[in-house]
Amino acid sequence: MTPDDIGAFFAAPGSVDPEAYLELDVTFECAGDPRVAAAHLCSEQSTAQWKRVNVHEDFRPQFAAKVITLQTEPQPDGFSIAVTDAPRGPVHRCRATIIHPHGNFGPRLPNLMSAVMGEGLFFTPGVPLVRLEDIRFPESYLAHFEGPQFGVAGVRAQLQAYDRPIFFGVIKPNIGLPPEPFAALGYEGWCGGLDIAKDDEMLADAPWSPLAVRAAALGAARRRAERETGVPKMYLANITDEVDRLCELHDVAVSAGANAVMVNAMPVGLSGIRALRRHARVPIVTHFPFIAAFSRVATHGVHSRVITRLQRLAGADVIIMPGFGGRMMTPETEVLENVRACLEPMGSLRPSLPVPGGSDWAGTLATVHRLVGSTDFGFVPGRGVFGHPMGPAAGAASIRAAWEAIAHGVPLEEHAEHHASLRAAIEAFGTH
Amino acid sequence: MTPDDIGAFFAAPGSVDPEAYLELDVTFECAGDPRVAAAHLCSEQSTAQWKRVNVHEDFRPQFAAKVITLQTEPQPDGFSIAVTDAPRGPVHRCRATIIHPHGNFGPRLPNLMSAVMGEGLFFTPGVPLVRLEDIRFPESYLAHFEGPQFGVAGVRAQLQAYDRPIFFGVIKPNIGLPPEPFAALGYEGWCGGLDIAKDDEMLADAPWSPLAVRAAALGAARRRAERETGVPKMYLANITDEVDRLCELHDVAVSAGANAVMVNAMPVGLSGIRALRRHARVPIVTHFPFIAAFSRVATHGVHSRVITRLQRLAGADVIIMPGFGGRMMTPETEVLENVRACLEPMGSLRPSLPVPGGSDWAGTLATVHRLVGSTDFGFVPGRGVFGHPMGPAAGAASIRAAWEAIAHGVPLEEHAEHHASLRAAIEAFGTH
Repeated sequence: MTPDDIGAFFAAPGSVDPEAYLELDVTFECAGDPRVAAAHLCSEQSTAQWKRVNVHEDFRPQFAAKVITLQTEPQPDGFSIAVTDAPRGPVHRCRATIIHPHGNFGPRLPNLMSAVMGEGLFFTPGVPLVRLEDIRFPESYLAHFEGPQFGVAGVRAQLQAYDRPIFFGVIKPNIGLPPEPFAALGYEGWCGGLDIAKDDEMLADAPWSPLAVRAAALGAARRRAERETGVPKMYLANITDEVDRLCELHDVAVSAGANAVMVNAMPVGLSGIRALRRHARVPIVTHFPFIAAFSRVATHGVHSRVITRLQRLAGADVIIMPGFGGRMMTPETEVLENVRACLEPMGSLRPSLPVPGGSDWAGTLATVHRLVGSTDFGFVPGRGVFGHPMGPAAGAASIRAAWEAIAHGVPLEEHAEHHASLRAAIEAFGTH
Repeated sequence: MTPDDIGAFFAAPGSVDPEAYLELDVTFECAGDPRVAAAHLCSEQSTAQWKRVNVHEDFRPQFAAKVITLQTEPQPDGFSIAVTDAPRGPVHRCRATIIHPHGNFGPRLPNLMSAVMGEGLFFTPGVPLVRLEDIRFPESYLAHFEGPQFGVAGVRAQLQAYDRPIFFGVIKPNIGLPPEPFAALGYEGWCGGLDIAKDDEMLADAPWSPLAVRAAALGAARRRAERETGVPKMYLANITDEVDRLCELHDVAVSAGANAVMVNAMPVGLSGIRALRRHARVPIVTHFPFIAAFSRVATHGVHSRVITRLQRLAGADVIIMPGFGGRMMTPETEVLENVRACLEPMGSLRPSLPVPGGSDWAGTLATVHRLVGSTDFGFVPGRGVFGHPMGPAAGAASIRAAWEAIAHGVPLEEHAEHHASLRAAIEAFGTH
């Protein structure tokens, strides 16, 4: 590109109609001139060839992505990660804000992803390492999306659960247990105090646990638990399957007795979530397989909050995400950014309930509550409820006891003196 | 886990029915005992809790993933990439082969992905860096998948193109040009010698180029080019859109005149490709946005050949992939592994045509042909045809002239003496 060509991929902040553009925060490492690399980043994701040969025209004013800010810092030691066939030259680490005209592709999730995290971003000359850090949408773009059908308030209303976290439990053993004993575990969990008993994200419509049979067994167990406790409960059925079966499996699960459905968002595709959203009569919960593959490395890939925003855009009422603690290998700031992406204003889209999860038990609830800074979250133990030495009812009771301690400002150990389930949880899980 | 628990996640090669298991090659870096880490990798992706509390049972024999080989090497300098909240302890770099019982989830792509590249793989205690390197399927699993409907032979038959590469061209300018002038470019490309003129992967069903209008214009141009050249041609329409529109857009495009359709595989979801495969009447071509996000870093994520295998499983007749040369920042061995994954035996599934692409022009054809080692590939220039200084017809002619030179063993420069289009291509693109 000539200096003029490069200049056409830069714009002054405020010089364009903000409603016509998405805004992207991108970090990258490049060899050579960072301004040239940044211009290529824009060119490759939009109008890589902006005119026909021998025709006097220029598609860049309307169709080009453009850099509006660029910070650069020399990296004398070269690229932070060795990349085969990396380009040569002095290396800079850069942060750019890029505006991308959404009229290039419209309000379609796969085309949005192709534009902002596709070939353009990851195959820019001189830029072997690049990460899409964040994305912002104008109202004009958001207006095309339905977003969550129920959102935080809808889920709370359905459960009659206010001013406290929502208590989930992943029924374990997750794989291999037939529907009837599986439902018996769910029943115990609900009776002990769970709001929502859920399938594991790996439990599918399997021959040894067909979804229709499982949902019927869990539905019956749920209604029994509701009658006995006098409190509404949810059975969250994992309907993850081939994308063209989602609506059918939603109907199968819901008519059998599930009152929420879970889908593994990235393996199915975010677009499949959006299609299900238009069909669903119950809350949609998304789960996080196949995100850490591209979000864990700090200098390459896509930041997880971008995927959280897209899940909310697609209509997830509840978003299960990697939570706090060393086990999940996710920086605390990243978890909090994902929580915020669920709850903060986003056009007229309802908030999604964030569920930061990972090896939780009664003893981790206070930390999650403190870090999130509000009660608008879900708490999702697996073994912390279903591996509790006194059984799932006690497991669930230990979680509720831990919440009582927090709500009343009583130290956990002190509260455990009067709650056997909590004391047993501390003994079983507190030494890890 | 106790030593006994750990042992239950190991198996001797040959001790299990191979038809019941997928085989995974995994590399990982761990802190602490590599055997414990490898056992956790298996446990987390299958039966993380293998029994109910106070019930004498064990789901591991039937349902556990198991390590069958494990090689380890100390890494005195620690993890190869700094990871926030990385576990502590002596670091090893390891390579394991894991068998995973596919009966846990069945022949469903999203459930397969959730199992082998989901929470289990990426959230194993002590393992912050891990990469799924390869996957092998037994016949019993492959038998549930249709695979490509046309495959290499079907595409060749449709084009009447044998014993040579298939010549694609990406019509440029890719973004902003309305259907009529866009079709005029395609027409010129076909007349110059392209087999297939294609939409860019970012060109969608946009208001300034509605798919129905574009496909009608390109269809008419294609039929005219076929009449004038006497040779079958293809217009490859990008139907990438929300997944529940794919079949409708296939019908729109095909009835208007497209005779192949392209989908961006990962943004739409592989499961969407499989659903389209059951509906499609023309070859399906998949494109590669959003793969490098998780495949470029050598020590974390998923190797691109795994995604190539899944695309073939899903039914892609043609797979466009990052090709050779520094521009694509993909190691030569990786490109070749992807080419092989398209062509090598895979149960009774037809081969997919591999199209390694990236900044190609007449001068790069010989290298691609030499490296691939056969004529079973597609060659896909963009600007190399549509940015040719003499126009798209000459651009396409320059590619065909380059192939003549290769086929007759004539040096390119010498052949260019008698072919103005080739000479102009060398002058325009040969100095980069």
